[in-house]
Amino acid sequence: MSRYDSRERHSLVETAEALADAARAVTLRYFRTEGLEAESKTAAEYDPVTAADRGAEQAMRAELARRRPDDAILGEEFGARPGTSGLTWVLDPIDGTRGFISGTPTWGVLIAVGDATGPLYGVIDQPYIGERFRGGFGKAWCDGPPGRRPLRARTGRSLDQAILFTTFPEIGTEAERRAFRNVSARARLTRYGMDCYAYALLAAGHIDLVIECGLNPYDIQAPIAVIRAAGGIVTDWQGGPAHGGGRAIAAASPELHAEVLPLLDLSEVSA
Amino acid sequence: MSRYDSRERHSLVETAEALADAARAVTLRYFRTEGLEAESKTAAEYDPVTAADRGAEQAMRAELARRRPDDAILGEEFGARPGTSGLTWVLDPIDGTRGFISGTPTWGVLIAVGDATGPLYGVIDQPYIGERFRGGFGKAWCDGPPGRRPLRARTGRSLDQAILFTTFPEIGTEAERRAFRNVSARARLTRYGMDCYAYALLAAGHIDLVIECGLNPYDIQAPIAVIRAAGGIVTDWQGGPAHGGGRAIAAASPELHAEVLPLLDLSEVSA
Repeated sequence: MSRYDSRERHSLVETAEALADAARAVTLRYFRTEGLEAESKTAAEYDPVTAADRGAEQAMRAELARRRPDDAILGEEFGARPGTSGLTWVLDPIDGTRGFISGTPTWGVLIAVGDATGPLYGVIDQPYIGERFRGGFGKAWCDGPPGRRPLRARTGRSLDQAILFTTFPEIGTEAERRAFRNVSARARLTRYGMDCYAYALLAAGHIDLVIECGLNPYDIQAPIAVIRAAGGIVTDWQGGPAHGGGRAIAAASPELHAEVLPLLDLSEVSA
Repeated sequence: MSRYDSRERHSLVETAEALADAARAVTLRYFRTEGLEAESKTAAEYDPVTAADRGAEQAMRAELARRRPDDAILGEEFGARPGTSGLTWVLDPIDGTRGFISGTPTWGVLIAVGDATGPLYGVIDQPYIGERFRGGFGKAWCDGPPGRRPLRARTGRSLDQAILFTTFPEIGTEAERRAFRNVSARARLTRYGMDCYAYALLAAGHIDLVIECGLNPYDIQAPIAVIRAAGGIVTDWQGGPAHGGGRAIAAASPELHAEVLPLLDLSEVSA
């Protein structure tokens, strides 16, 4: 990380805060309001997009245009904008739109900034609770209802002691679901429906595993930065980089990650 | 409700507040702390009981002993205590213990008071978010991060427009799961894992249906009171009273309830 001096790091952290504040203001204006309308992105699958989603990304892009006009942007709603600095901001204005339209406080604003090596710093913000999880440049911390707390993933738990989360049980192909159940059947407890909040809980030391598939880069880059800074590990299901999206496993410790990875071998599962 | 004069109603509402405050203090002392230990109630199934669970119920029982010694109590942790007033307090100190040990802010403290006709007044409290949903005696309201808001279940949504919640997909017998899927397949969106918070979201007008089975009286009495006061309806799967526990369907409107009930006919499903 020596490529980024303390002044640059400070600028990135401050900018991420400003983006999270801007997105928080927009999303809270829409969350739990009457007549929240959701359109379907594709006819085949229910994938709501709300005015909040678009408004929050626009607010973040406006902030970046003012503060860091040379950085590139990849956003869920408005796609890619090239840059010249070598840094890219990866934005998901509302991760967990289904949760958002249901009123559950487990969706989040995801903000990551990275370079060719992957995400360097990330924020997972839950505006309704008023909880902001951050990690990168060697630090991970959260501000929430009980005040400021360091984030530290927990260690020393094997799979049979582990709490596992995934977004919802219907996700993925049949082979992917079989692989997931391969892990789930051996875990102490499996829970659903927490959206990106599950990654925050892992970074904070409350749960041990998050396993998902069908991810986009903007779904996973902020969680990668926060979890890594908290001592956890995030890879794809083969142990490679996960920041491009697709299948991801987040584990609280390298030992647990090593125990679970073979269970996610799709060739093994389908054989 | 003319049986209960305004002074008695006031006493019941104030007592419920005091119980919720007492339980909130205890549960927040334990929530998200290191080394939270969960025992298994039965060897067969994972059902954690924590010090928080027991401590919160003890705190509520102590409050009742001081304020309303003649009322009966039915609590999840310490069972039934008889009374002479004809009123019973039904307490679940932590509904959603799995969520509690996972750090998710969707568990709640459930408090109901009722007589032979069923629950009269109820509270669903989420201590970490600082959100308290209340309903009964013709009023339903919530205090939370955005301040005080009335609770009103939404109307005019048919099943194909409905958002459906249930605790987790593994619950129930195979026939019960088939009946649930019978509804789920026709709903707009199905979500999992919100514990008692789903009932609060229904009362607040954000979702339309909650369907569960295997309930105890203390799981459902507070939701019944809050949802009824907000204009919704809660029954068992045959349209009868649900306050005894077992299978429950909560619907935002009588019309939606009437549309869904036939789909939960277990004789139909298993035929």
